[in-house]
Amino acid sequence: MTVKPLIRKANYYETDQMGIIHHSNYIRWFEEARVDFMEQMGYGYDEATLKGIEFALTGLSCEYKSMVRFGETVSITAKITELTNARMYVSYEVRDVKTDELRTTGETKHCFWDSERKRPVSLKKALPDLYALFEVTMEKI
Amino acid sequence: MTVKPLIRKANYYETDQMGIIHHSNYIRWFEEARVDFMEQMGYGYDEATLKGIEFALTGLSCEYKSMVRFGETVSITAKITELTNARMYVSYEVRDVKTDELRTTGETKHCFWDSERKRPVSLKKALPDLYALFEVTMEKI
Amino acid sequence: MTVKPLIRKANYYETDQMGIIHHSNYIRWFEEARVDFMEQMGYGYDEATLKGIEFALTGLSCEYKSMVRFGETVSITAKITELTNARMYVSYEVRDVKTDELRTTGETKHCFWDSERKRPVSLKKALPDLYALFEVTMEKI
Amino acid sequence: MTVKPLIRKANYYETDQMGIIHHSNYIRWFEEARVDFMEQMGYGYDEATLKGIEFALTGLSCEYKSMVRFGETVSITAKITELTNARMYVSYEVRDVKTDELRTTGETKHCFWDSERKRPVSLKKALPDLYALFEVTMEKI
Repeated sequence: MTVKPLIRKANYYETDQMGIIHHSNYIRWFEEARVDFMEQMGYGYDEATLKGIEFALTGLSCEYKSMVRFGETVSITAKITELTNARMYVSYEVRDVKTDELRTTGETKHCFWDSERKRPVSLKKALPDLYALFEVTMEKI
Repeated sequence: MTVKPLIRKANYYETDQMGIIHHSNYIRWFEEARVDFMEQMGYGYDEATLKGIEFALTGLSCEYKSMVRFGETVSITAKITELTNARMYVSYEVRDVKTDELRTTGETKHCFWDSERKRPVSLKKALPDLYALFEVTMEKI
Repeated sequence: MTVKPLIRKANYYETDQMGIIHHSNYIRWFEEARVDFMEQMGYGYDEATLKGIEFALTGLSCEYKSMVRFGETVSITAKITELTNARMYVSYEVRDVKTDELRTTGETKHCFWDSERKRPVSLKKALPDLYALFEVTMEKI
Repeated sequence: MTVKPLIRKANYYETDQMGIIHHSNYIRWFEEARVDFMEQMGYGYDEATLKGIEFALTGLSCEYKSMVRFGETVSITAKITELTNARMYVSYEVRDVKTDELRTTGETKHCFWDSERKRPVSLKKALPDLYALFEVTMEKI
């Protein structure tokens, strides 16, 4: 199971008056990469929700290494770095496609909830096939 | 019934690389002014929804007269310009608070739906008191 | 010269609490399609700017026909509908890629300025090759 | 020197399809609070820039404790938690104004650059009065 990075252009409306992509947008790019990752697993976000699991975001961090500008194309790699019954950590790398220069790194922390967000759920029990797929992507790292 | 304009600062993250507020943000400012207008009527957005009415947006327009920059404060005036059982037009003016210079004008078009968005609803019948309030603000213009 | 529509997925962070793409985002999608259109002409946005022309946005409109939801893929067609020395109108159509159902139509109005945004410029004189390309795309309509 | 929190309403366009404020927006709220903090110091963002200092953002983190919904009013407290010649850490707390319930905590990391972003600058040397003000707010904590 090879997970491909998301390839993505930086949009004009994502710039700020410094002439660079505003820092808040990388958080949104992480989400795009996470959604894409799930689809490569064969699981749309909605699908997991339909099956009764919510991937609640409990925290995130981002380090800014160098700037992305309008029109540049980046690759965003998402990989699971920690996985238990109760939670999952996903890390991200944003790189310039042309130069491979590192732009941003980041991490999001998730825990698994039932669809009503009332109580924690074991991903391993609720969606064992998805859990197994996640594990395989970790071996690949 | 005097409706007060919304006073609002332009945020850094709303700028683009031209050093001005990106044009898409004015559409969001119109929404802020509309929500504020409703609250001044004594009706939160959610309240109308609870009572079974959805103010579906069917169209909008915006004219850009002069630029807003980060840190500037603007006033956003919303007023109803057309009101029937089935639909409502709201117009907007964005002005610089210091100079009163006109920045942007715009309009949003709304129709009234039941909460499931299945069929049109007469606002006059469903929420006669709100309809009456809306009419009063129009006389004030 | 056949201009291809931009193909694009609706992102999670573009949804609102109604479960649909927030109306302000279509304005940003129009910009993405416009930038893509320019690139298909062989002209990056920045390139035109470097050559001393600014495509200032003076107005826009948008009509919402049906809703786009998270995860759906849309095609966004941009075409020039009016072109003079001084100004350009661009119209847009957003359609669902699977069903071809019309989601949104819109228009943006632009005038041509020098890079310092001090005085209007004739596109035909300043960038005759780009002007000619624009004209060809209009014949194609 | 007492620094007041920023009071702010959650906007409709900041919600996502879960019916809560999308997590990326808190990063923008932190910026609003930071800008407001600077203004309370008597220093607009632009002013510092004019005097040759850039507060480059090098990293951030955010922890999500409980959800903010459309229409709720929050207070956002910003305070400097670390200050050296070369860098500054700012921490944030977002709380519900009515219940004082904690919604989000976060931190941004900044370093000081000259306006061309070419080399690091000592804030203490470049803007000693602002540095002194910053120190006073830290004592207040």
